[in-house]
Amino acid sequence: MDVTNEARAAGLPVTVPSTALFTDQYELTMLQAALRAGTAGRRSVFEVFTRRLPEGRRYGVVAGTGRVLDAVENFRFEPAILDFLREQRVVDEPTLDWLAGYRFTGDVDGYPEGEIYFPGSPILQVTGTFAECVVLETVILSILNHDSAVAAAASRMAVAAAGRPLIEMGARRTHELAAVAASRAAYVGGFSTTSDLAAGFRYGIPTAGTSAHAFTLLHDSERDAFTAQVESMGAGTTLLVDTYDVAEAVRTAVEVAGPGLGAVRIDSGDLLVVAHRVRQQLDELGARDTRIVVTSDLDEYAIASLAAAPVDAYGVGTQLVTGSGHPTCSMVYKLVARAAGEDPEAPLVPVAKKSLGGKLSVAGVKWAARQRDAEGIAEAELVGTGPVPPELAGHLLSVPLMREGRAVARERLDAARERHVRARAGLPLSATQLSRGEPVLPTRYLTGTA
Amino acid sequence: MDVTNEARAAGLPVTVPSTALFTDQYELTMLQAALRAGTAGRRSVFEVFTRRLPEGRRYGVVAGTGRVLDAVENFRFEPAILDFLREQRVVDEPTLDWLAGYRFTGDVDGYPEGEIYFPGSPILQVTGTFAECVVLETVILSILNHDSAVAAAASRMAVAAAGRPLIEMGARRTHELAAVAASRAAYVGGFSTTSDLAAGFRYGIPTAGTSAHAFTLLHDSERDAFTAQVESMGAGTTLLVDTYDVAEAVRTAVEVAGPGLGAVRIDSGDLLVVAHRVRQQLDELGARDTRIVVTSDLDEYAIASLAAAPVDAYGVGTQLVTGSGHPTCSMVYKLVARAAGEDPEAPLVPVAKKSLGGKLSVAGVKWAARQRDAEGIAEAELVGTGPVPPELAGHLLSVPLMREGRAVARERLDAARERHVRARAGLPLSATQLSRGEPVLPTRYLTGTA
Repeated sequence: MDVTNEARAAGLPVTVPSTALFTDQYELTMLQAALRAGTAGRRSVFEVFTRRLPEGRRYGVVAGTGRVLDAVENFRFEPAILDFLREQRVVDEPTLDWLAGYRFTGDVDGYPEGEIYFPGSPILQVTGTFAECVVLETVILSILNHDSAVAAAASRMAVAAAGRPLIEMGARRTHELAAVAASRAAYVGGFSTTSDLAAGFRYGIPTAGTSAHAFTLLHDSERDAFTAQVESMGAGTTLLVDTYDVAEAVRTAVEVAGPGLGAVRIDSGDLLVVAHRVRQQLDELGARDTRIVVTSDLDEYAIASLAAAPVDAYGVGTQLVTGSGHPTCSMVYKLVARAAGEDPEAPLVPVAKKSLGGKLSVAGVKWAARQRDAEGIAEAELVGTGPVPPELAGHLLSVPLMREGRAVARERLDAARERHVRARAGLPLSATQLSRGEPVLPTRYLTGTA
Repeated sequence: MDVTNEARAAGLPVTVPSTALFTDQYELTMLQAALRAGTAGRRSVFEVFTRRLPEGRRYGVVAGTGRVLDAVENFRFEPAILDFLREQRVVDEPTLDWLAGYRFTGDVDGYPEGEIYFPGSPILQVTGTFAECVVLETVILSILNHDSAVAAAASRMAVAAAGRPLIEMGARRTHELAAVAASRAAYVGGFSTTSDLAAGFRYGIPTAGTSAHAFTLLHDSERDAFTAQVESMGAGTTLLVDTYDVAEAVRTAVEVAGPGLGAVRIDSGDLLVVAHRVRQQLDELGARDTRIVVTSDLDEYAIASLAAAPVDAYGVGTQLVTGSGHPTCSMVYKLVARAAGEDPEAPLVPVAKKSLGGKLSVAGVKWAARQRDAEGIAEAELVGTGPVPPELAGHLLSVPLMREGRAVARERLDAARERHVRARAGLPLSATQLSRGEPVLPTRYLTGTA
């Protein structure tokens, strides 16, 4: 994915001239102080990880990696940005000079998009000078925290839907550009289509749509509305049948469109009861292939409760884009190692904040592998520092994402989507229980000599 | 606010070439069907309202209005968008032709930004042809649902902070552009500053910053780090004192910066206890004017619990940008009236979906006024259709926002911020209780003859 179609990108609301302003002020002031102190060039490793999953969740889903690659490559301090920083006296002239030439030249490694993660998993590692890495904190965390939250909700909903298609319809419930990223993350997590045209435009996600109550209300009768829609869109369209009386609407719908009517949408009421009644009525009217799409504040639990209902597709909005109760992931970006001095050959020293108030950080550059039993089912997330044990060398979770500032792991969005299905299938069965629980894998730390 | 500085906007990540893709597919297919049926030109009124406040909340805060004006004015179907819609066969050629000339030419009225709202308040009214209004649904709801959610949380936090400054630090916890809108909404709701440089750049919100643990860990000692920061930023800077041992850090900080040290930040531990100890230590060291900034997953309750602590400013991240448990507002965009026919002079007919499953919609074009007692304290939100009672004529809540497609109510962001303070001050005292409760005003419907 993220193979940008440049021609399209020209008119694209999502492309931004630079991501360099998605930065917290302290990153630039720390940069200034480090430049002056002579420590800015110390080779450093920052790590993205999370200390916990959202309460009750059994696994996390990495999403946004492709967007991170774009953001880092586009991270440039344009003249307008430098002027702003100068006017506001955010940083001094030497720092502005340094920023004017900024280009990330380091390496990024991490869990590939769609992969599963657990507390302590080293999801992303950013290696370079302190200066070039520290300024990326905010934009990297924004992307991963948002997208991974949505993907985790999408994955649970996909499990609950058990193969029935899920339509992402949440654009109106979140920031207009967050919505585009949410569609993308939902696709990684298992959704089939999106109603958001910007997401179709930007990421090639298949788009879908039905009809709204306003369309029915615009017309002098429901029959007029259905006739207008079918004449324009064909009988394969989806008619919304709950504006007035559902049974009457279904009758009218089949009269107008014929038994080849594509689908009906139900957006209110007790969906379980209504779906059964509508299915029976459609069958009696000969519209046996007409599908039933349900919407109306669905979450993974509501989807699961409709497993035995004659439902053909789910449209999900609010709960998807807000991460079904957990709209962010609490991922952090921490310095875990830095050079012992200014010499480029100076060895790396593991560093960590002292634990206080339960904020555990583990010092050192990490590797991670998923330990599996004889059947290939995961048993533990192994996170280590120091040399990788030889038997794990072929099972490391991280892959190179950027080398010397260039993305080396761009992929189609479908690749991330397929990876997620495989990764989830390799977890213990209890991973996909919707009930609250502990992380389905324990994280085990193997601390070697750094 | 939203007085765009065009020179700056040139380099601005937030400006998008067009908002027209922030649209759900069904809006365009409904448009196509209505164009073909000849009903697309019917004069229509769409209303934004919410059926309920988030559970336990006592009032809502309108935010994003200024962004809505920008979005509607920029809503144009650029060639790249039309090509996409054609390739994907989203709509037919006559519809594409119509979209190519799209420009909203109608009127928008609504509650001004910063105003308080309640269930049923007609927050925004969009008047024009069905065609020109229906396509704006998604982008208008995205903006208002997101921004109002953040502003509501900000308002509660501002009440809890009781005059102490609040710094918005949530960019890393939400989508990178949602973060910019969140900073803006937080400012409307009462925050003082933001750490997000993009928000400073785009909206002129004052920016602020402290320092991170990474900066301390980069250096060979905490003293080296503090010295580097003070030498570069001056003694007025804010030093982060909880990387290792707080008491030792405070001692070092005052030694390095002198008693004129600007502030210290505490980011972990029991903030109430630690703040008291740090205050006492600073006072003993003669640093009586050194301020204490606290951060660490604060929400309005945590802020309130620190009311008696010697805290000078709060930095708030996650809970602000995620609406403190309610990241969206469930605002909807409903057709409430449309012309009885194609004649431009045809009278408006009130319309509404039939209530089913509790989804109440009230038909008709509405006015709203806040009924007040003799002391000027609000008693009820009056929402009516038909003629405005003469005694309420001077007390209507809505103002003209756009006329014939042009914004007529642009204002500085500070105006919205000040309006919010006034509006909140006019509510009953129980409005600002943080505990869960019912909406502090009842909504009373006065249905006249339309």
